[in-house]
Amino acid sequence: MSKEEKVIPYKIYLEESEMPKAWYNVRADMKNKPAPLVNPATKKPVTEADLAPVFCDELIKQELDNDTRFIEIPEEIRNFYKMYRPSPLVRAYCLEKKLGTPAKIYYKFEGNNTSGSHKLNSAIAQAYYAKNQGLVGVTTETGAGQWGTALSMACAYLGIDCKVYMVKCSYEQKPFRREVMRTYGASVTPSPSMETEVGKKMLAEFPGTTGSLGCAISEAVEKAVTTPGYRYVLGSVLNQVLLHQSVIGLEAKAALDKYGVKPDLIIGCAGGGSNLGGLISPFMGEKLRGEKDYEFIAVEPASCPSFTRGVYAYDFCDTGKICPLAKMYTLGSGFIPSAIHAGGLRYHGMSPVLSQLYHDGFMKAVAIKQTEVFAAAETFARTEGILPAPESSHAIKVAIDEALKCKETGEEKTILFGLTGTGYFDMYAYEKFHNGVMEDYVPSDEELAKSMSALPDVE
Amino acid sequence: MSKEEKVIPYKIYLEESEMPKAWYNVRADMKNKPAPLVNPATKKPVTEADLAPVFCDELIKQELDNDTRFIEIPEEIRNFYKMYRPSPLVRAYCLEKKLGTPAKIYYKFEGNNTSGSHKLNSAIAQAYYAKNQGLVGVTTETGAGQWGTALSMACAYLGIDCKVYMVKCSYEQKPFRREVMRTYGASVTPSPSMETEVGKKMLAEFPGTTGSLGCAISEAVEKAVTTPGYRYVLGSVLNQVLLHQSVIGLEAKAALDKYGVKPDLIIGCAGGGSNLGGLISPFMGEKLRGEKDYEFIAVEPASCPSFTRGVYAYDFCDTGKICPLAKMYTLGSGFIPSAIHAGGLRYHGMSPVLSQLYHDGFMKAVAIKQTEVFAAAETFARTEGILPAPESSHAIKVAIDEALKCKETGEEKTILFGLTGTGYFDMYAYEKFHNGVMEDYVPSDEELAKSMSALPDVE
Repeated sequence: MSKEEKVIPYKIYLEESEMPKAWYNVRADMKNKPAPLVNPATKKPVTEADLAPVFCDELIKQELDNDTRFIEIPEEIRNFYKMYRPSPLVRAYCLEKKLGTPAKIYYKFEGNNTSGSHKLNSAIAQAYYAKNQGLVGVTTETGAGQWGTALSMACAYLGIDCKVYMVKCSYEQKPFRREVMRTYGASVTPSPSMETEVGKKMLAEFPGTTGSLGCAISEAVEKAVTTPGYRYVLGSVLNQVLLHQSVIGLEAKAALDKYGVKPDLIIGCAGGGSNLGGLISPFMGEKLRGEKDYEFIAVEPASCPSFTRGVYAYDFCDTGKICPLAKMYTLGSGFIPSAIHAGGLRYHGMSPVLSQLYHDGFMKAVAIKQTEVFAAAETFARTEGILPAPESSHAIKVAIDEALKCKETGEEKTILFGLTGTGYFDMYAYEKFHNGVMEDYVPSDEELAKSMSALPDVE
Repeated sequence: MSKEEKVIPYKIYLEESEMPKAWYNVRADMKNKPAPLVNPATKKPVTEADLAPVFCDELIKQELDNDTRFIEIPEEIRNFYKMYRPSPLVRAYCLEKKLGTPAKIYYKFEGNNTSGSHKLNSAIAQAYYAKNQGLVGVTTETGAGQWGTALSMACAYLGIDCKVYMVKCSYEQKPFRREVMRTYGASVTPSPSMETEVGKKMLAEFPGTTGSLGCAISEAVEKAVTTPGYRYVLGSVLNQVLLHQSVIGLEAKAALDKYGVKPDLIIGCAGGGSNLGGLISPFMGEKLRGEKDYEFIAVEPASCPSFTRGVYAYDFCDTGKICPLAKMYTLGSGFIPSAIHAGGLRYHGMSPVLSQLYHDGFMKAVAIKQTEVFAAAETFARTEGILPAPESSHAIKVAIDEALKCKETGEEKTILFGLTGTGYFDMYAYEKFHNGVMEDYVPSDEELAKSMSALPDVE
């Protein structure tokens, strides 16, 4: 519990001069490093040369670097950050009052940019290194569209091309997201498409398919490796992404330090792990170094429960099985949450860094049903004024639960959670919730056993 | 032209302690006061008693007060402001670089809240005074939905009821906006409806009508005056709204003053005038008092050109003709811009305060076609990262034009414009623009002559 001597404002903004100048690489402080990516052909750890056709050179270095604690943020990226960062660290006075809790609740709000989420933090970095390498452009996939939007913005700013493969059902159901990307000059192709061999094969086998994230990844990778001057970029899961997203935690920590506040409990939603990893990294570093103690909770959807019901094993990152293998908590690369799940965080696996930390007992995880998530989202919107993304609302739900526990015990815990983004493009899901027709989906043990039975054979 | 001695950050945020504690009432400094509202029955200036059945008591006082220069912002409103204010004053470094202009461009960005615009500044004030008076709730109308969303948020925060009449075509075409309002607990009724006499009459006469703002106003007013414990509130045009919106200009001025910057030119988009009036008020006050000089430009759509092609005369504020009459620049209360106009700012009249200032030569006005507006919006989005609302983009267009003039002349003008909000719910219009099927609409002289021929007979 922290002593607060200064009056804490509703929102703490850092000065430009206080913004981080380097990203923090939590792997440097991990005794047990995350397991290396493995080449699916050789079953050996990937080398820089293995990855060079797919990823940008500098990003490969970052991906494989388990030792360098701080990596400088290039000035051009820092200038871009200044357009939409520092993001506010908000003291949730109104929510505390509404709950009647003695807990002190803070959230780091990453939604005040047009991508609507924290994804922009890594998108600009990846686009920058691509441009710096003299590339013409990048390819990627997007589901709900936040990552695709972020990458489009970054590429527009730097003047490089951006090709986005958007899961077909999202392309059709979320025309607004598509148009935002087009505003930023990106080409957006519904996946599966006739532009790639993977896509053609998929359409031949399943003519009516509405696509999947795994297939879109495979198409984007194929396009990158077969088009001169292009590389593939990814918005979550990878080590490099967590590195870039550490800017969230670094800013949050600097803002709290200014006011002498130390959080007891840090909560983040977890899909692929980009936000959670970024938020907790600098705090986790202190814990790993034995300097300070914090409690960490990863919140995942009950419909895609990789931490709480998955296995810790090597698995494919994409359904096309052309990407390197990663050791992670996974539900199997064939697992796709039911379409009735609207709450996001649909990836079958989890960041290898976070998987290792979870495996080593440095953090907890809980899984939440989506109707509870939307109820928490509504409470939050009405009290704090921000309409949260369903993804972010997983963290809200657990923050509220923890604050209510404090109400019972009288404990004045300081809680920090990550509010990753806004829900402006998720109103179909909110509508279902308002109309009382939102259902919960929890995969059966049999379903998970089946999807986890097809793991690759790697030790 | 201003001397800048300190390094200007990308975004200037005021400290909480620097936020305005009082609104500024520009009428106090106007030698020619705006013409009073007139009772349509008696043709005499309205009294507090005339307005009491429609508006909240304290708001009537503010509406009629032409003399008090500063009106204290109640603490509860100031606390609410702290949730989403101060809004950033942004130095548009990236846009300046893109344009290659020696001009220094600043914008006050009001879009970082869930209503997506500046409307929340007045919504919370009006909801507060309603609650303070012991009312059960408020009624209003909304077109595109920004005002309705803002009012829903304010009412949810204060725990009073909110009934929104939403123009039927918007209700159907913008289901997301409707769901945001429902998230905040508002009841949203498509207008015309069977809930009011005005609505029933309209539906009987025009069974297929998709509604109009004027009709929705009439329904909301009728509902307020016939339901015990309710009053009607309005998001623009009125003096009280400009008063509340002065927080925009006060913050902008405080932020600029901190860095010793004086704008030469201030630009705002103008529909009913709430944003423009709020932004320019404190600067206009200095001009009216002869302390400093500024140039002001109001930017309106060529499709609804009340300043540039309207008449300065008493007119009805609503098509149902049940509201008080206002003296303003108007195109006639029957004027409705063509449906092909997607750029917002559709009101037939203009704030009486701004009308008087324009009439007295204190500001200029220009009208812009929407395809030019969307082109400017796209340039802005790609360089400054923010996806602007079509309304706001009118100001962007003229700011860019003025900055390019400086490029020709070499003049280092300091330009300030109001960026009122974000365009997340306007992607249909952006899509039309991207697909090259957006058309421009400019009313003919005959069309305007006809709509302006039905003005009420008041001197």
